[in-house]
Amino acid sequence: MTTSPTERVHAAFERIDEVDRPEVWITLRSRDDVLADARAVEARLADGAELPLAGTVVAVKDNIDVAGLPTTAGCPEFAYTPTVTAPAIARLIERGALVLGKTNLDQFATGLVGTRSPYGAVRCAWDPERISGGSSSGSSVAVALGIADIGIGTDTAGSGRVPAAFHGIVGIKTTLGLVPTAGVVPACVDYDAVTVFAADLATATAATRHMVGTHRGDPRSRAWPATVPLAASTAPTVAIPTSVDRTALSPEYRDAFDRTVKSMVDNGFDTVEVDIAPLLDAALLLYDGAIVAQRYAAVGEFVDAGAAGLDPTVAAIVRGAKSPSAHDYVGDLSTLAAARRTAIDLLADVDALVLPTTTEHPTIAAVQQDPIGINRRLGTFTNFCNLLDMAAVSVPGERTADGHPFGVMVVTPAFADQVAVDVAARIVGAPPTTLSDEGIDVLVVGAHLRGFPAASQLSERRARFMGDVTTSDAYRLVDLHTDPPKPGLVRHEPGEGAPIAGEVHRMAPAHLGTFLAALPVPMGLTRVELSDGRWVLGFCCSRDASEKGTDITEFGGWRAYCASHTGVKKSV
Amino acid sequence: MTTSPTERVHAAFERIDEVDRPEVWITLRSRDDVLADARAVEARLADGAELPLAGTVVAVKDNIDVAGLPTTAGCPEFAYTPTVTAPAIARLIERGALVLGKTNLDQFATGLVGTRSPYGAVRCAWDPERISGGSSSGSSVAVALGIADIGIGTDTAGSGRVPAAFHGIVGIKTTLGLVPTAGVVPACVDYDAVTVFAADLATATAATRHMVGTHRGDPRSRAWPATVPLAASTAPTVAIPTSVDRTALSPEYRDAFDRTVKSMVDNGFDTVEVDIAPLLDAALLLYDGAIVAQRYAAVGEFVDAGAAGLDPTVAAIVRGAKSPSAHDYVGDLSTLAAARRTAIDLLADVDALVLPTTTEHPTIAAVQQDPIGINRRLGTFTNFCNLLDMAAVSVPGERTADGHPFGVMVVTPAFADQVAVDVAARIVGAPPTTLSDEGIDVLVVGAHLRGFPAASQLSERRARFMGDVTTSDAYRLVDLHTDPPKPGLVRHEPGEGAPIAGEVHRMAPAHLGTFLAALPVPMGLTRVELSDGRWVLGFCCSRDASEKGTDITEFGGWRAYCASHTGVKKSV
Repeated sequence: MTTSPTERVHAAFERIDEVDRPEVWITLRSRDDVLADARAVEARLADGAELPLAGTVVAVKDNIDVAGLPTTAGCPEFAYTPTVTAPAIARLIERGALVLGKTNLDQFATGLVGTRSPYGAVRCAWDPERISGGSSSGSSVAVALGIADIGIGTDTAGSGRVPAAFHGIVGIKTTLGLVPTAGVVPACVDYDAVTVFAADLATATAATRHMVGTHRGDPRSRAWPATVPLAASTAPTVAIPTSVDRTALSPEYRDAFDRTVKSMVDNGFDTVEVDIAPLLDAALLLYDGAIVAQRYAAVGEFVDAGAAGLDPTVAAIVRGAKSPSAHDYVGDLSTLAAARRTAIDLLADVDALVLPTTTEHPTIAAVQQDPIGINRRLGTFTNFCNLLDMAAVSVPGERTADGHPFGVMVVTPAFADQVAVDVAARIVGAPPTTLSDEGIDVLVVGAHLRGFPAASQLSERRARFMGDVTTSDAYRLVDLHTDPPKPGLVRHEPGEGAPIAGEVHRMAPAHLGTFLAALPVPMGLTRVELSDGRWVLGFCCSRDASEKGTDITEFGGWRAYCASHTGVKKSV
Repeated sequence: MTTSPTERVHAAFERIDEVDRPEVWITLRSRDDVLADARAVEARLADGAELPLAGTVVAVKDNIDVAGLPTTAGCPEFAYTPTVTAPAIARLIERGALVLGKTNLDQFATGLVGTRSPYGAVRCAWDPERISGGSSSGSSVAVALGIADIGIGTDTAGSGRVPAAFHGIVGIKTTLGLVPTAGVVPACVDYDAVTVFAADLATATAATRHMVGTHRGDPRSRAWPATVPLAASTAPTVAIPTSVDRTALSPEYRDAFDRTVKSMVDNGFDTVEVDIAPLLDAALLLYDGAIVAQRYAAVGEFVDAGAAGLDPTVAAIVRGAKSPSAHDYVGDLSTLAAARRTAIDLLADVDALVLPTTTEHPTIAAVQQDPIGINRRLGTFTNFCNLLDMAAVSVPGERTADGHPFGVMVVTPAFADQVAVDVAARIVGAPPTTLSDEGIDVLVVGAHLRGFPAASQLSERRARFMGDVTTSDAYRLVDLHTDPPKPGLVRHEPGEGAPIAGEVHRMAPAHLGTFLAALPVPMGLTRVELSDGRWVLGFCCSRDASEKGTDITEFGGWRAYCASHTGVKKSV
C-alpha cells in the first residue's frame, strides 16, 4: 500500500471534519486511540505479519460489539459496554483493520430509512434532504463520504443493501450463518446477517472473505457446504422480474432499472423474466405475520419498560410484536418452508435473480410524514431474502436520468454467494473477486480447457477458473486418438518433457468427487508439477493408452496442437 | 423368496384371526383386496419387474395417507379419505409391498403409551396387561405378533422407538426430512419423521432405504449431504450416559441396560460416559415450552370445535398448546439452536450415543391412573432426538432379568443414519446392512487395504467397505519403493497382467474429493477394470514411478507380497 495505516487514519479524521456529518457517529473514537492502533499495525507489519487489511479503516454499526466502546443499538438507555469484540469485527482487526467508531442506525436495526434514531436522522451523503437509508445508515454514509474504507452493517430486511443503493456503493449480504452474528444485538435472531459496505466490489468482497467462518459463539453459524458453487457461468443467465412487478418502482428507478437490464443484455447477459410474486408474498411475513415476534424476543422486555430514548415508530413495531401466537408462528414457518422451495425452483436454471435493490429515494420530510408506508415500500425487493435463506449483493446500476445513484441487487440461493459476487462484478464491469477460499485446484490440459467440448463438466460443477499455467518440463503430451479427442499427460524425468500449457480450475470437494467418478477410461487424476514449483491435481492417463498415442509435446499444449490440426476434433 | 406374495397375504390374515387383537387396526383391508394387490405384484414379477419388496406385508399407522382408505389419525370425526398415497408408502408399494391396513395410534400421534385412542388401548403383544407403547401402537404390535413384515409409524417424541423397545423389535427413525412427510397428519410438522418397525434390522433397513428421498410435496425434505458418513468405525466408540442419568430407569431396565453395555464392551465397543443433561434439558421444550404450539397448529382448530371422539388427554394437550406466544417460541428456537450445537460437540469423538430407549414398561392400568406422568417418563431418552436433529435406531438390548424385551437406542447427529444402523447391527450381532446407496466406489490395492497404514484415510472419511475384489488380468503390480511402502497398479493389455487382489470402499463425493486431493505423488485415481467386468475408480501411478519399481504381479496382491516380505513396511 502506498498510504501507511497512520496516514490513512489522519485522512479519515480530516474527512470527518470536512464533511460535518456528526449524526453518522454514535461513538467516534479519538484520533489518538485510532492512531495508536495504526502504529500497532505498523509494528506488526514491520515484524513480518501478513495483514491483508492493514490500515483499512472501518466504521461499525452500533448494534455490533467492539470491546471497550458502548453498544447502543440506537437507544442511549439500552447501552452497555462489551468486553469482547464481535467475531465478525475481531476477524477484520486481526488482519490489520482499524475501527474508527460506532455508527448511527435505525434503532434496534428496525427500519430501512435511517431516520429512526434519537441520535438524529442520517442524511444522504450526496443530498442532505434525502434519507441515507437504513438501518445501517451511518456505516453507509461513512463509506459514501470517503471516511471509511469499509462500513459494517447488519441486514434482516434489507438494511445492508438499501443504503448501498442510495449511495452508489456496494453492499454484500452473505448467506445467513456464514458471518457469525455473535456479539450483535439481534433484530430477528434467526434472520440477521452482518454485512459489508465499500466503494467497490473488490474491497467489499475482500473484507467479507475474512469475516466468513463458523464461530462457537453463534450456534446458527454455518460453513460453506461441500457442494459450494465457486463461479457464475461464463455466459450468465439472470432472472429479472416481470413488468408487473416493476410497477412498484418510482418512475426514475423504473427507467434506471430498465436501462440497467438493457446494459446487462448488451454486456452478454441472458435474461429471463420470472414472476417473483411468491417471493414478495413471503416477504410480507416479516412484519405482517408472526415472524415479527423475533423483534419482541430480542428487545421486547426493554421496550415494554418504556425507556426515554425509544423511537416511537420502532417502539410501536416492537410492542406490536408481542401479540402473535406460537401456533401462528408455526404456520408461518410452514409457509416459509414452502416458499424457500419455490424460490429454489424459480432460480434453478439461472445464475441469479437481478432486482432493483429498492423502489425510490424519498426525502427525510416524506418519511417523517409516512414513516411506516414508505419504509414498507423500500423493502419490497429486499425483505424476502433472509426469510428465504438467500444471498444478495447490491451494486450500482445505471444512474437515474438526473444522475443519481440507483442500485441493483443480485440474489442467489443460500451459499451461492460467490455466484452473486461474480454476476455483480460483471454488471459493474469489475474484475472477478474471490469471496471464498474453499475448493480444490485441478489442472486441465485437454478436452476440459475453456472452449473445448468437456469444459461443460467444469462449468456444470461451478468450478472457478484460476488462471493459465504450464507444467514443469517433466511432462510429455500424447494425442490418445480417442473420440472425442483427448490428450494424455505423461510424467517422465525432469527435462525429458516440456512445459505443457494448461489451466487451473477450482472445484468444491463434492464436485471434484463426482468429476473424478465421471472420468472415462483411460483418464485419471494425480499430482502434477507446475513450472512455478506447485504440485496440483491434474490429469494423467494409463500407461497402455499413452503408449498407443502420438507424442505431441512439441506443440506445447493441446490448444496449439488442435489449432494446427483443424481436423483433430473429429479424429478417431 | 420361498413364499409367494399371495401365500404371504393368506398367512397374514390367518395370523390376524389367530391373535384376536382387533384394536391393532383402525381400517383392516379385506383379504380379497390385498390378495388382488398380491396377484398384481406377482404379475409384475412375471413381467420381469425388479421388486425388492415383493410380497412384503405392511401395516400403516393411521395418520399416514393411503389412497382410498380413510385417514383418522385416531379420531373418527377427523377422518378423510385421501386420493393420493403418502410418498413414503407409495415408494414401498412401487417396490412390491402390500398394505394390509391402517393401524391404531395415540390420537394425533400425541403420546408414547398406545392407550390414547377411541379405537381402544393397544395391548402389548406379549402381555395384554401392559401397554404397547405409542403413538405407533398398532403398527408395532402388528409386527411383534408376526402379522406384518414392516410396520410404518411416525415419530416426533419417540413414537417410532418406544413401542419397538417394548416388543423386542427394531425401530428406525431417520434424520428429519430424509423420508418425506407429505401425506402425514402432522403432530409437530417441523419435527415429525416417518419410521419403520421390523422384527430384524436387515428388514427395517431395507424398507427404510426405499423410503428415503426428497419429494416435491414436502418442502422440509432433505437429501443426503455430500459428506454423508457411510460407515461406523471398525472399532466403534460409543457414548453412554453417566450413572446419574440412568436413575431415570426402572430397576429392571437399569439392570438390563447395564448388562447391555457390558455385552457391548465384551463385544469390542469402546465406551465413554457423557453427561447428557443438556440433551434431556432440551427435550423439556417439546411439551413444557412454546414448541408444543406445533400441535395446536396441526389440529388445534379441529380440537377446539369439540368433536365427540377426542381423547381427553390428547385434547387437553392440544388445547394447552394454544396459549404460548410467538416470542416465547422464538426464544425456544434459540435454546434449541444452542442445544443442537452442544449435542454435536458432545458426540464429536464417538460413533454414536447409546441410551436405553425408554425407562420402564408400565401396565395399561397404571397409565390410566397417571396418563401424563408416565408418558413423560417414557420419553425421557427419546424426546430430544427430533428437536436436536438427530437420527436414532432402537434395537433389542439384553432382556430383563425376568426375560422381557428391553430396547437400546443408538443416536447420531443428523445424516449419520448409516452409522447408527451399523452400530445397532453390531449390538445385536447382525450383519451390516446398507441404508443408503449414496457414494462412489473406489478400489484400493495397497497401503489403503484394511489393516495397512493408510487405511485410516478411508475410515476418517467414513468410507464403507464393500467387499474384496480382483482386477482383470490387464494389470501389473509394482512395488514403488516409497516410504511408507506403496504399490503401483499399471494397466497393460488384457492378459498381459494378472488378477490383482484389492478392496472396494464407498465414499461420499466430498470425501472422495478430499481423499484425491490428499494423495501423495506419484499416486492417482483412474478407472480400473475388475475381474467381474465392472470398471470402478481405482489407484494408478505415474509412468515414471512405475518404471522405477519392482514388478510384484506374481504375488497377486500387496497383502500377499507384504506377508512374504516381512520387512517391506520399512523398506525405502
